[in-house]
Amino acid sequence: PADWTELDKRAVDTARVLAADAVQKVGNGHPGTAMSLAPAAYTLFQRTMRHDPADPDWPGRDRFVLSCGHSSLTLYVQLYLSGYGLTLDDLKALRTWGSLTPGHPEYRHTKGVEITTGPLGQGLASAVGMAMAARRERGLFDPEAAPGQSPFDHHIYVIASDGDIEEGVTSEASSIAGHQQLGNLVLIYDDNQISIEDDTAIALSEDVAKRYEAYGWHVQTVFGGENVAGLTAALDAAKAETGKPSIIVLRTIIGFPAPTKQNTGKIHGSALGAEEVGKVKEILGFDPEQDFQVDDDVLSHAREVVKRGEAAKAEWLKGFDAWAAANPERKALFDRLTRRELPEGWAAKLPSWPVDAKGVATRKASGDTLSAIGEVLPELWGGSADLAESNNTTIKGADSFGPASTATKEWKATPYGRTLHFGIREHAMGSILNGIALHGPTLPYGGTFLVFSDYMRPAVRLASIMSLPVTYVWTHDSIGLGEDGPTHQPIEHLAALRAIPGVAVLRPADANETAAAWKATLEKRSGPVGLALTRQNVPTLEGTDAEGVAKGGYVLAEAEGGEAKVVLIATGSEVQIAVAARKILQDAGVPARVVSMPCVEWFDQQEQSYRDQVIPPAVKARVVVEAGIAQPWHRFAGDAGEIVSIEHFGASADYQTLYREFGLTDDAVVAAAQRSIARVEGNK
Amino acid sequence: PADWTELDKRAVDTARVLAADAVQKVGNGHPGTAMSLAPAAYTLFQRTMRHDPADPDWPGRDRFVLSCGHSSLTLYVQLYLSGYGLTLDDLKALRTWGSLTPGHPEYRHTKGVEITTGPLGQGLASAVGMAMAARRERGLFDPEAAPGQSPFDHHIYVIASDGDIEEGVTSEASSIAGHQQLGNLVLIYDDNQISIEDDTAIALSEDVAKRYEAYGWHVQTVFGGENVAGLTAALDAAKAETGKPSIIVLRTIIGFPAPTKQNTGKIHGSALGAEEVGKVKEILGFDPEQDFQVDDDVLSHAREVVKRGEAAKAEWLKGFDAWAAANPERKALFDRLTRRELPEGWAAKLPSWPVDAKGVATRKASGDTLSAIGEVLPELWGGSADLAESNNTTIKGADSFGPASTATKEWKATPYGRTLHFGIREHAMGSILNGIALHGPTLPYGGTFLVFSDYMRPAVRLASIMSLPVTYVWTHDSIGLGEDGPTHQPIEHLAALRAIPGVAVLRPADANETAAAWKATLEKRSGPVGLALTRQNVPTLEGTDAEGVAKGGYVLAEAEGGEAKVVLIATGSEVQIAVAARKILQDAGVPARVVSMPCVEWFDQQEQSYRDQVIPPAVKARVVVEAGIAQPWHRFAGDAGEIVSIEHFGASADYQTLYREFGLTDDAVVAAAQRSIARVEGNK
Repeated sequence: PADWTELDKRAVDTARVLAADAVQKVGNGHPGTAMSLAPAAYTLFQRTMRHDPADPDWPGRDRFVLSCGHSSLTLYVQLYLSGYGLTLDDLKALRTWGSLTPGHPEYRHTKGVEITTGPLGQGLASAVGMAMAARRERGLFDPEAAPGQSPFDHHIYVIASDGDIEEGVTSEASSIAGHQQLGNLVLIYDDNQISIEDDTAIALSEDVAKRYEAYGWHVQTVFGGENVAGLTAALDAAKAETGKPSIIVLRTIIGFPAPTKQNTGKIHGSALGAEEVGKVKEILGFDPEQDFQVDDDVLSHAREVVKRGEAAKAEWLKGFDAWAAANPERKALFDRLTRRELPEGWAAKLPSWPVDAKGVATRKASGDTLSAIGEVLPELWGGSADLAESNNTTIKGADSFGPASTATKEWKATPYGRTLHFGIREHAMGSILNGIALHGPTLPYGGTFLVFSDYMRPAVRLASIMSLPVTYVWTHDSIGLGEDGPTHQPIEHLAALRAIPGVAVLRPADANETAAAWKATLEKRSGPVGLALTRQNVPTLEGTDAEGVAKGGYVLAEAEGGEAKVVLIATGSEVQIAVAARKILQDAGVPARVVSMPCVEWFDQQEQSYRDQVIPPAVKARVVVEAGIAQPWHRFAGDAGEIVSIEHFGASADYQTLYREFGLTDDAVVAAAQRSIARVEGNK
Repeated sequence: PADWTELDKRAVDTARVLAADAVQKVGNGHPGTAMSLAPAAYTLFQRTMRHDPADPDWPGRDRFVLSCGHSSLTLYVQLYLSGYGLTLDDLKALRTWGSLTPGHPEYRHTKGVEITTGPLGQGLASAVGMAMAARRERGLFDPEAAPGQSPFDHHIYVIASDGDIEEGVTSEASSIAGHQQLGNLVLIYDDNQISIEDDTAIALSEDVAKRYEAYGWHVQTVFGGENVAGLTAALDAAKAETGKPSIIVLRTIIGFPAPTKQNTGKIHGSALGAEEVGKVKEILGFDPEQDFQVDDDVLSHAREVVKRGEAAKAEWLKGFDAWAAANPERKALFDRLTRRELPEGWAAKLPSWPVDAKGVATRKASGDTLSAIGEVLPELWGGSADLAESNNTTIKGADSFGPASTATKEWKATPYGRTLHFGIREHAMGSILNGIALHGPTLPYGGTFLVFSDYMRPAVRLASIMSLPVTYVWTHDSIGLGEDGPTHQPIEHLAALRAIPGVAVLRPADANETAAAWKATLEKRSGPVGLALTRQNVPTLEGTDAEGVAKGGYVLAEAEGGEAKVVLIATGSEVQIAVAARKILQDAGVPARVVSMPCVEWFDQQEQSYRDQVIPPAVKARVVVEAGIAQPWHRFAGDAGEIVSIEHFGASADYQTLYREFGLTDDAVVAAAQRSIARVEGNK
């Protein structure tokens, strides 16, 4: 561009040298892309994006997503140059214990990092969620403003790599972005045609630009990573296109200008070696003897972005204050959401159900709960991966989120709507939910069948790594779904999801526990929660308790006629089986306690004294019953205990037959209890 | 078509009526697509495909994949009409316990079902694998034959739905199919624009035809599900296109001709109701009072396909016999592979390593093993999702599988090559491996980092449901990968994969256990096996044992100076820690045994007596050590035992620091052993 100075050029070259030096120092890492993307990243941080390094949480900021997280230096160096607090010493500590510069960017760990990236495709897919969240935010607070005139207007910028482009989650999310006409989303695709197996021609032949046209994106191509003028013009055109997401295919040479290693797979993921680093410095006019060289005038030039950011924010504040003055109620809502608080008295809206043997499916109770609280919690929004009616994810009366042109006979769509339609794209749903939660200030949820949590698992893991308040509505949570058979019946999924550190799996026993599950989920807001809900009706039980649900487990039915001789532990639809078994045992003179354990993770967080109260260490006779594998339950059952579980895939039949044939019955629980009691007595 | 008779029309309408009746009888299911796809499915089974209902295993047959498995009736009705053994009673037993007609088609359960489908996208992605396997098969046995002239030439036909098209795994696999120029793959995309949330316009706006053009496919569009002439011409054109995979976008009306429910989301997944079923019958000229009406002349007309199949097979046999006579060695190989046998003496090729404290990474040992046995096992082939060098998945000297035009500086590609390049598409890799294994007779493997097993999990689950001999090379199997940090460090993955019924997770302790792991995997061939391999070097240990590996667990180091007071159980890279801890304990006068447990699933399959021999029930002091969550180990540790595990996400640093900071050390194991021993003694 015309105003591109020698100092700008030198700053870009400094970024390249720092990347080479940092990887060389630690001995491993990804220098190549950080070198070739330096002009693009510098352009974004210095010229294109509206941001204030002094206030990384400014709600009016543009967001930056580095989808190719392995190129973390691309981001770290710009955070350093633009004054986010990272120092040269931090860059020197790259990829070492306790540093602010881990191998991949980590949200909440390093200021200015908007999202944890690394697993390919996730950043780009979550950026689609951020763009959706930005539109929803505008709709909540300032829907009448003319385009571009609201303090809630901003952009989401993404840099993505060949790997991102190849991942399926990207395809799903990119299709959704085109469908949603997300004009606030700008993607730079670093088309360097090199990945770890070297020239991508060995695995990638598709016409990426045409593919994105097919998704309905605005497509531009810029030749040359050093072509800053071309990139700047393309970024301007992308911003000018408000009706479509934009992709800029930026043809770069990885590792430029390393004389022997540029344009090879080696420079993607290994240090350059001292000699090559020296040559890079020579080529760029740096002292080959000096490491981490940053000229003072370069740094002060780059740091001028702090002043520009301050000014931009001050300008923005005028508009924001005017909006606040004109919209006191919306401002109050904005403040409440920013404080991450729920409105006073909201819980009074939660429905409750009378004790009832016929009962109701917990998925239905979840849907009723959502519709009941939806009115007082405008921040809550979500939908399903094409299973709205099965997942009961639609808040009654809510419009669908989408351009009016996407409306159908069944769904009224508006750009600021509340009901999300992900299509049959569970993985993108997961990543988009992450993006919405990251963007703030709304609270998203998304539904599919529990078995298809497998499709979204990488996104769930990232939600947990980032402790995001995302809620999954996973219905059809066992063989209880019946006729659809083994491909649709979760067996290992409760265990496999509990296995992810930080994910709370909530499996309510009945309608009232379901409402309590939503209550606790919204109040804790500590990380991702997966609700595992039944397809089939379950009785509404006596004794279920909202506080007990929040504690993860509690005594649902106490032993009678003496201290408990056996503790029956169950979750979800199997609690009714435990209750029925308890009756048989009690009738036979065996005092038996039933513990409902909707959330193992929350139970584990309670004081030892509470846990011992619920499952007394002295009562070693125990039975756990859950329609899934036993793996998570051995530590509760103990050596003397029994687990009534399913250790094989399901089958296609009505669910009553399956429960009977697979031995998930009250009789089986009674027999297991007797075996366990006998074992304990034999040990005495 | 010109030769389309009234009987053909009646047969198609019979298929529609049977679909409506079958769902109506059981009360749930998916009638809509089975009705509207009846003409296409009938055309494939009666006219397009080369198949012999009397011999569903005929290696020369075309394969049929119903990717939209929920429309299982589309397949069941054709299997019935064409004489695969399904009866009208089987159709009446749809979706009931023990029937041959479960909710979704199940491989090995119903004759003529080539693949279990249901989870969307999987069928189409696996069909890409089948098409690749067909080309590799041809390359192994008959590479010199002119195109279309080999007994190993056949086609893979797929029917897929809107849901399949939306799933990311489809995008990945379709891109690979275009890249691979799979002219033997023909996809009919049932573009009915209805899914469960009704009109797909609410979630799907992309230009699917253009997207497939971008992937390099041959694209045709046919309007009207009843347009058999158009479809037939398109199928002919698709077969004529030998250099590209073909997609036929077939614009149908779901549920045609149901008068009130066609073209709605309701008819996708619910029974039509008696009245609507009656009307369908009236419209089609069937008796509304009669259920499951099949006219004798219709059935015998349809069953003529048996004779045509017999003739086709006889004709094919001539070519096959001529090939066999001319290629005795290849025929011998073909016979061996068909018998699923390994060649005599193959195991002598397995490498071995001397005891060595410095040791070697198990990923490296795996690569050496593959290269060593590759020569004698031409059936073994595979590759990586862009991590070939990291996963060590390349068999030395093997060409890459791909059109010559895809060759690069690093890789020589030939259409019949052996090294697979999946690109950064783990999910498609998983599904493609399934397709290769299903097609036969080769044995595929595929590699990525263990943490990214999450990306391919739905395919792994299906491999297990189908008991397919697929091997995953999952390297970088713990925090031992070091600097890449939490997004790349598996913590819960060993547990989560063990959770899937039927998946064997194999985590060898050293190089020799790694060779033994490959040996046992190839010999058992009982279902999917995941090899969890280290990035870092591990010592080559004394006492490792191939038979012990095949048994899943064994005594690696016996207690000395008396009966074991404690049993230390470990897997993979933590076995060395157990061995070091044992030495400390022994030196302190505590007899301690080390059990290496590379495969919990195989250990569980051993006789109780063997298991008790390895972990004596009387020795209650136990420590398990594994660099992952404890969840799978409680049942081995027992009440008195201890587990040295990691219950949180990892961090970015060198691996030695991580092991130390996360407490995975010999000292920690010793301390745990002492606690466990004290507990046992306190209980006495």
